[in-house]
Amino acid sequence: MIVEILNTGSELLLGEVINTHAAWLGGELFPLGLRITRQVTVPDGPLIRRALIETFDRADIVIVTGGLGPTTDDITREATAELLGLKLLPDEAIRAAIVARLSARGYAFRERMARQVMVPEGAVVLPNEHGTAPGLYIEAISRPSSKSPHFFLLPGPPRELRPMFTRYALPILRGLCGDLPARECRTYRVVGLGESEIEERVGLILTRGGDVEVGYCARPNEVDLRLIAARDVLDRVEPIVLAAVGDSLVSRSGEALEEWVVAHLAAAGLSLTTAESCSGGFLAHRITNVPGSSGVFRMGFVTYANEAKGEFLHIASDLLARFGAVSEPVACAMAEGALHRAQADYALALTGVAGPGGGTEAKPVGTVFVALASRGHATICRECHFPSDRATFKQLATQAALDLLRRALLARERSLTAGVAVGH
Amino acid sequence: MIVEILNTGSELLLGEVINTHAAWLGGELFPLGLRITRQVTVPDGPLIRRALIETFDRADIVIVTGGLGPTTDDITREATAELLGLKLLPDEAIRAAIVARLSARGYAFRERMARQVMVPEGAVVLPNEHGTAPGLYIEAISRPSSKSPHFFLLPGPPRELRPMFTRYALPILRGLCGDLPARECRTYRVVGLGESEIEERVGLILTRGGDVEVGYCARPNEVDLRLIAARDVLDRVEPIVLAAVGDSLVSRSGEALEEWVVAHLAAAGLSLTTAESCSGGFLAHRITNVPGSSGVFRMGFVTYANEAKGEFLHIASDLLARFGAVSEPVACAMAEGALHRAQADYALALTGVAGPGGGTEAKPVGTVFVALASRGHATICRECHFPSDRATFKQLATQAALDLLRRALLARERSLTAGVAVGH
Repeated sequence: MIVEILNTGSELLLGEVINTHAAWLGGELFPLGLRITRQVTVPDGPLIRRALIETFDRADIVIVTGGLGPTTDDITREATAELLGLKLLPDEAIRAAIVARLSARGYAFRERMARQVMVPEGAVVLPNEHGTAPGLYIEAISRPSSKSPHFFLLPGPPRELRPMFTRYALPILRGLCGDLPARECRTYRVVGLGESEIEERVGLILTRGGDVEVGYCARPNEVDLRLIAARDVLDRVEPIVLAAVGDSLVSRSGEALEEWVVAHLAAAGLSLTTAESCSGGFLAHRITNVPGSSGVFRMGFVTYANEAKGEFLHIASDLLARFGAVSEPVACAMAEGALHRAQADYALALTGVAGPGGGTEAKPVGTVFVALASRGHATICRECHFPSDRATFKQLATQAALDLLRRALLARERSLTAGVAVGH
Repeated sequence: MIVEILNTGSELLLGEVINTHAAWLGGELFPLGLRITRQVTVPDGPLIRRALIETFDRADIVIVTGGLGPTTDDITREATAELLGLKLLPDEAIRAAIVARLSARGYAFRERMARQVMVPEGAVVLPNEHGTAPGLYIEAISRPSSKSPHFFLLPGPPRELRPMFTRYALPILRGLCGDLPARECRTYRVVGLGESEIEERVGLILTRGGDVEVGYCARPNEVDLRLIAARDVLDRVEPIVLAAVGDSLVSRSGEALEEWVVAHLAAAGLSLTTAESCSGGFLAHRITNVPGSSGVFRMGFVTYANEAKGEFLHIASDLLARFGAVSEPVACAMAEGALHRAQADYALALTGVAGPGGGTEAKPVGTVFVALASRGHATICRECHFPSDRATFKQLATQAALDLLRRALLARERSLTAGVAVGH
């Protein structure tokens, strides 16, 4: 089964609107045994038609996103119906659903929305529970002269597309696929090793047999090693991977560093607090993105200004004056102050120069001190240099902080297993 | 000039790795008068070759991303050279740059990296200042039998691609384009109106003449109205847009809500603090993403637990007991407590139920109270309902908070202009 994705929308090609559909749909299709072999984005307008025509020759299943809305630049529904020679007919159930949705929010139905009520003859309506435009499924049509793929037309906004896909499109796709031979995808998330080093340690051994598909994806301070194979093959090679990457392995499921940390803190009944300067709340944000994090994270401090560091984290002003806010002693004092103020078991602190301004010769843009304080153990601190844009800097700095805590928790778990008494 | 983007990388089609290249490159190309007419993603492997071949017929300029790294799944360089019939030759300057980069970080050159040193005959090397793999520019080749497009091969990681593109590819592209007729793109960011309503108020008037290209892009609690036309046409229609969207207009340049808020606070010499429960630091993160935010944002509180709200924001425990943490009185008390503790001019507070757990019948998942406290004015509070996933909830809730402050700042600026004395 050849699956292609066609994303429509000029905004995806003009500026900072990022197309998240391919990645998300790819992840959803994989467990069905389906792989996306091509993803195409075209602007709104006549190129949509051309891109639709091209899929006829190549694909069995085409998922089209966008262009179902009420405005005049939305032409996906009309273009697909025309290409397939299907009439568009009004659907009263869709009209009623839109009217009900709008009136619950205090809005009136506008004539402009009437296009969203039209359905190509014979198409299955995929209800939209998070917006007005419904999705459509049009079965493959075999004619003597041609054969069309199965078309799924889905709305552009991810918050509308995702629940609609999961609830209404996936069951249809499952029916289309039958039982394809299951290959499993395992993603080993690694922090602290580069991709060349990972390939050298493990990739070559794995590809030798030819029955494992190996891929790498490098992100700021993180590499995903991706293996695709039958489950028994993956089970057989897994010990090789684990031995090769050691403590740099964060997870075997693509689990993020913050998910690992929250899960392990929760399992041990331990709590965490944060004291952030240069990362400006991003560390707390990453932690609180994890459902259930309220069990381990009760509060965090964003102390951008020096007075805030002094007042809320009890940092002596002579320490700030002597070493400067971006320094190892201040990072350690921030972590210890937060630990004490929040009565937590662990405290992570970050202080650095995110840029673009604020750098000096001694402490250039990108410098960051990451400290971890914990009850009954000496505070530890790492100096790192991440000269980059502001967003990447925040990502790298918080990654370093979470990894410092992860390694401490690993060490703690090992000493507990070894029966050694520890401070908790 | 027809420009196409070809992104390579199985990870872009398999899971949660999001392709940011099309959006970013689109924004960079537009000022040169270039529009991307198609963006294609294919997995690593033989489909790259097929997708490269297809561009020969259609495109004048092809920008390829990814597949230049050291691992065996990286084949872009080799496939392009082979298709164009160009020999690959080692480049000693590249080798020296990689060795220097690695040794500064304490790593050795690995034989595996030698492929990155190879350059197709006649290609221009685009240095990589943020990674090892250099980019390549291969000029269009005219042969009696065929004509190839101009190829730009760029590395996959955005933090390597972006500076390389800006510094080394853009000047070449500028030379290729000459002086194309300049059309300008203006993006009006609107908060508080839906896209149908915007089209009704303004879109139809604008498209009537046919010389303005109008597009819409809806995001959580935000719509971008995009107009493309010659500058004098845009200047002529701008008053129509401004009159139609009124105070719901955030910016005329795609400026984000948080950028607007930081700029206006800074210009007025005012400071802001935050007290976050359900948004868990995301509001502070959005604010501190803006360069220069340290001038207006000195600190923020992430008070997830009730005790933290009590201790750090001085919220009476009977208030929490009587109304519950997710309530208007507690949101107001959080904002007022933060205002007082941080000695700021404005304080935004959020308390709500992000989900997936924690909802009740009276306060279901998605309920959030957003409060704004300021010196000399009564605290205001909005109750909102954003039932959605955790990430969208945080986006919507912080969007509502920033818009509350934006409208207060607008009102303040108007009363100052009108000569009315205000509390600041």
